[in-house]
Amino acid sequence: MTGTVPTKITIEAAHALVKPFIHHTPIATSSFLNDHCEAELFFKCENLQKIGAFKARGGLNAVLSLSEEQLKNGVTTHSSGNHAQAIAFAAAKVGAKCYIVMPDNSPRVKISAVEGYGAEITFCKNTPEERQRTVDEIIANTGATFIHPFNNYEVIAGQATASKELIDDVGVALDVIIAPVGGGGLLSGTALSAQYFSPGTKVYAGEPEGAADAVLSFRSDKIEKAPYINTIADGLLTYLGDKTFPIIKAGVTDILTVSDEEIIQAMRYLWERMKLVVEPSGAVSLAAVLKNKEVFKGKKVGIIISGGNVDLGKLPF
Amino acid sequence: MTGTVPTKITIEAAHALVKPFIHHTPIATSSFLNDHCEAELFFKCENLQKIGAFKARGGLNAVLSLSEEQLKNGVTTHSSGNHAQAIAFAAAKVGAKCYIVMPDNSPRVKISAVEGYGAEITFCKNTPEERQRTVDEIIANTGATFIHPFNNYEVIAGQATASKELIDDVGVALDVIIAPVGGGGLLSGTALSAQYFSPGTKVYAGEPEGAADAVLSFRSDKIEKAPYINTIADGLLTYLGDKTFPIIKAGVTDILTVSDEEIIQAMRYLWERMKLVVEPSGAVSLAAVLKNKEVFKGKKVGIIISGGNVDLGKLPF
Repeated sequence: MTGTVPTKITIEAAHALVKPFIHHTPIATSSFLNDHCEAELFFKCENLQKIGAFKARGGLNAVLSLSEEQLKNGVTTHSSGNHAQAIAFAAAKVGAKCYIVMPDNSPRVKISAVEGYGAEITFCKNTPEERQRTVDEIIANTGATFIHPFNNYEVIAGQATASKELIDDVGVALDVIIAPVGGGGLLSGTALSAQYFSPGTKVYAGEPEGAADAVLSFRSDKIEKAPYINTIADGLLTYLGDKTFPIIKAGVTDILTVSDEEIIQAMRYLWERMKLVVEPSGAVSLAAVLKNKEVFKGKKVGIIISGGNVDLGKLPF
Repeated sequence: MTGTVPTKITIEAAHALVKPFIHHTPIATSSFLNDHCEAELFFKCENLQKIGAFKARGGLNAVLSLSEEQLKNGVTTHSSGNHAQAIAFAAAKVGAKCYIVMPDNSPRVKISAVEGYGAEITFCKNTPEERQRTVDEIIANTGATFIHPFNNYEVIAGQATASKELIDDVGVALDVIIAPVGGGGLLSGTALSAQYFSPGTKVYAGEPEGAADAVLSFRSDKIEKAPYINTIADGLLTYLGDKTFPIIKAGVTDILTVSDEEIIQAMRYLWERMKLVVEPSGAVSLAAVLKNKEVFKGKKVGIIISGGNVDLGKLPF
């Protein structure tokens, strides 16, 4: 594992490493949404990625970057969401043991998905302390390598490959790329890829009002927690890390917040107009564009649709 | 308009004609479904097509094939579904007047979609006689050209471009392509494209048990109506036409019927596993593959997902 911010060459290497295992996801467009926003929108469909989210990229790059010696002892992480699936998926690809710590109230569908990749699940109480204690115990017993969901340079380099592909494929010079922000793995990767592969492109982020830590941190110039957590975008609840924050601070133009109502409206457009199953977190970037038309008017805008893992029995419309 | 079965050159010309106006839809794959079926499946995502269905192709080719003289008087059709949108969309692209006859009980969402393309809607009672009478009246008053939803060689040539693209893009020799069958526009186009562009590829069809006219016609060698109509796949209710039936009879290996329950299960896989919004008719091909694993085992199978126009408020799961 490297201890430095991913370089252009690191990200190119990450792309070469993960390519054989991921979907080269398509870029979708919508005349309706272009007209509606008076802009040209290019949607990078990471909801169509393996495991249903961009996290497959970072998880794979982190696992594939480990030495044979490290892989022998397996990998571990705590997550109830897409990162758990990503690490389980990546470990299965290289035949490594995988230990996932999940809160004991995790939805059955998420447990099954992780089990489906052959990972060993340990349940614990749903507190940060319990999760960490359980992971520490696993590491002590097995020697497994812990892979953080975002505060890890291999993970960041992996997530960066999504916007690298977007830039490579889109065929126009993008004025802007916008990505959602939770812990900042995707956003920091997006900022790096824009800087290296499309230097004229500005990077924005969309963030739920009900988990507005990144915008606060961005303004105050230090990592802050959200004043309150209350949002449908359950993939974006965490706060930034000491590896993601400086990259975001240096490479992101602005962070735009959106309400749950605005997220659901954006989701509805993506489902009804573009026929894409997108989870609330995945619709946050479009919601931010719809809310701030004056910022994006007349521009060529890359929009990262981050994931599509949503319970069909609990749709907000 | 031509009076003969589309040739290889006709379909290539149709593709060149419609290309600037359509989405070049992606081919999606799913390791889960490959494992589940013990086959290699390649999904042509026509749910991501303009207007949300392959019908944009046939509608465009038919409208773009008209003379300037004909276009001056506009185009007309009767449909409450995707064909209405396709013709309205195509007419808007060439700036022609468009008269759509819709049953007076059509869902509001479908009416809005057609209105959105600037078409003039005439409502009538929902009987075949009334629809035909209303269209005849429009033709008498305006001189508009009637474009049949499937029994029209330009429409067939347009629909054929979907599997032409699939064959061009897939990068392997397909053993089979499977498409849903209603009136047979898509299926006859698929049969022709396979014959011309991938002669080793067999063509199958999926059909709902609750609208099983095509399988009957295929067996008895004459056009038959369904013994009863009762299916969730509302895009596949019509029976074959005298232009589509002979092409299907000559070029299709078999027609496989599926129950609504099987259609809904296939839909669920497409939504949950592949993150694609697919309408019931669009899931019929996959349902047929899932039901007949022994037919497709070990094969490379192209599956046409025909459309994604579904009311999010009325999902079957």
